[in-house]
Amino acid sequence: MNEFRFELLAEDAGTAARRGRMHTRRGVIETPVFMPVGTQATVKGMLPEALADIGAQIILGNTYHLFLRPGHELVERLGGLHRFMNWSGPILTDSGGFQVFSLGELRKIDEDGVTFQSHIDGSRHRLTPESSIEVQQRLGADIVMAFDECIPWPAERRYVDESTARSGRWARRCRQAHRPDGSALFGIVQGGMDPALRRRSAEELIEIGFDGYALGGLSVGEETERMYEVMSRSLPLLPKDRPRYVMGVGTPENLIEGIARGTDMFDCVMPTRNARNGVLFTSFGRISIKQARYRDDDSPIDPACDCYVCRHYSRAYLRHLFQANEILSSVLNTHHNLHYYLHLMAKARRAIEEGRFEAFRREFYQRREQAKS
Amino acid sequence: MNEFRFELLAEDAGTAARRGRMHTRRGVIETPVFMPVGTQATVKGMLPEALADIGAQIILGNTYHLFLRPGHELVERLGGLHRFMNWSGPILTDSGGFQVFSLGELRKIDEDGVTFQSHIDGSRHRLTPESSIEVQQRLGADIVMAFDECIPWPAERRYVDESTARSGRWARRCRQAHRPDGSALFGIVQGGMDPALRRRSAEELIEIGFDGYALGGLSVGEETERMYEVMSRSLPLLPKDRPRYVMGVGTPENLIEGIARGTDMFDCVMPTRNARNGVLFTSFGRISIKQARYRDDDSPIDPACDCYVCRHYSRAYLRHLFQANEILSSVLNTHHNLHYYLHLMAKARRAIEEGRFEAFRREFYQRREQAKS
Repeated sequence: MNEFRFELLAEDAGTAARRGRMHTRRGVIETPVFMPVGTQATVKGMLPEALADIGAQIILGNTYHLFLRPGHELVERLGGLHRFMNWSGPILTDSGGFQVFSLGELRKIDEDGVTFQSHIDGSRHRLTPESSIEVQQRLGADIVMAFDECIPWPAERRYVDESTARSGRWARRCRQAHRPDGSALFGIVQGGMDPALRRRSAEELIEIGFDGYALGGLSVGEETERMYEVMSRSLPLLPKDRPRYVMGVGTPENLIEGIARGTDMFDCVMPTRNARNGVLFTSFGRISIKQARYRDDDSPIDPACDCYVCRHYSRAYLRHLFQANEILSSVLNTHHNLHYYLHLMAKARRAIEEGRFEAFRREFYQRREQAKS
Repeated sequence: MNEFRFELLAEDAGTAARRGRMHTRRGVIETPVFMPVGTQATVKGMLPEALADIGAQIILGNTYHLFLRPGHELVERLGGLHRFMNWSGPILTDSGGFQVFSLGELRKIDEDGVTFQSHIDGSRHRLTPESSIEVQQRLGADIVMAFDECIPWPAERRYVDESTARSGRWARRCRQAHRPDGSALFGIVQGGMDPALRRRSAEELIEIGFDGYALGGLSVGEETERMYEVMSRSLPLLPKDRPRYVMGVGTPENLIEGIARGTDMFDCVMPTRNARNGVLFTSFGRISIKQARYRDDDSPIDPACDCYVCRHYSRAYLRHLFQANEILSSVLNTHHNLHYYLHLMAKARRAIEEGRFEAFRREFYQRREQAKS
């Protein structure tokens, strides 16, 4: 049983941008899509109803965090992640690999898997391709990600080679381990910044066969142009009839460029984490709400924005909440930033449908430039 | 111009409980009423719409905090506190006296007023009866409180005597300073725990004449029975046709006993502060959501509660959010606790209307007792 299906609805004439539709067991997702990150069974500061209100179609859960706390068995006993956190839409879980490999000294890798220490209490744990898939399926993920290694940048060629080969072997084991429960399984292209290794990785994954394909190992410190280069070279290698997901990316500019290169799915902590630090996204670029210049500013964050926050609160109030370290500061800032991201994607989708993505992309940059002058 | 008016709708036969209605320039308030505390121009963790949803009729703002940050001039320039914080219902502000006197070493009192240092940055400021009223009116308060000294407990008889006399002189100055702008001005009965001083204070305030009368200086460390005793003796001294407000009180039990003794208005940080510490109010008493016993508990906080949180989230999820230090922990816990307080008051109002307050009070205690056995 695999209820997952991707429809390619439209392709842009001037760029590689695509307009698509994913059918999951928990509903339809219009692409290109941005997925808010809900690390610990909550998108920080957002009620599920508010997420739905601003057009979130799917959210991301972090396997590493949920595995450690509260534990996937507990979540499963309580009816799965959707019921636990009161979110009935689709959920994609990452494999835990990214977080485990970020632990540095606290983890040890072997051919079979990874042994690591919890960042919470130092307790020892192990994840393998098989156990990662099991954890994700027991959490109730609608889109399950293969367990792989996210290669840091810069890295030695030899390490990139070995790691990519191992991630390939692990991808095969993930495919084997995935129980048919209606969820989709995505493979993750690695290969560092090397075009030949990326190609080899993509070909291997396609040979194994996945419901969708991700580019991993991007936004790990490389220059933006290098990231775009990898997207431009790697995305065309992937099957046109499957969704393409660029993991952990990125800024609004990155999203526009990712779409132009054929990406269907994105996730990033940027809108939510920046919100908690008082950095807000607007049609004319970012602003830092803590700045003294907003002390008396009665205008909304972005006069062009029609979100709940911009309709009801001034920059002066949001600055006050930030200065006073109030909970509502994170709540309102997160609401605005996610609204910005989700509506940017909605506008991109419409532009592709209407065959004017290039004009949309040009306008996106023009507004930012005008604000500077 | 004074648009403020109080209607006494019903009196309980067996107790001193009253059912009333306050008409303010920003709408009607059914009493007895509990006022959520919005110290820094926000009820911590609550959107204004959520407050309205759970039946909040009026909220409280803290003059001391708003005076220091963001400043009452700023709030006034931005259209007043209601517009600033997106709350269109009535707001009562305290006078700043309670916080200023709590500063201990950081404040110095004289006949004219109080000089104090900010807890935020140590800057020096001054509040007098006149300036407190001005600050409150410039914030846009619908109910303005007289500037007085909240006497600690225990205190020397002589100090209580002098302080109460000074608060009386200040009350007269507050009455003089209050500009007719449609807001109400309440006097505050002090006098420590001494019945004769309380009586003298009440008589003086009544002679001056206020729109409502508060009991200050309670819940300052005295035994509960002593607090009830002061309520029992002081509330009957106040005019029946004016609202009676017991400041800074208290637990659900305190509210029930306060109502039984003739109180119309309460405010307290207890439901909101406890929520952030994981302490939740239920029909069967308090629970601490961090306890390990709730780890696997799929039931709602209170099966008898129909609030948003109890309809959608398990104790296990709320425990997880608390353990993970998630923003949503404070948001959901606060929502539940305020709903509990506001609905307790709604049920008390109905019981008084229907002439069954004593039965309601008995039942309130019985549920708590049953849960213990």
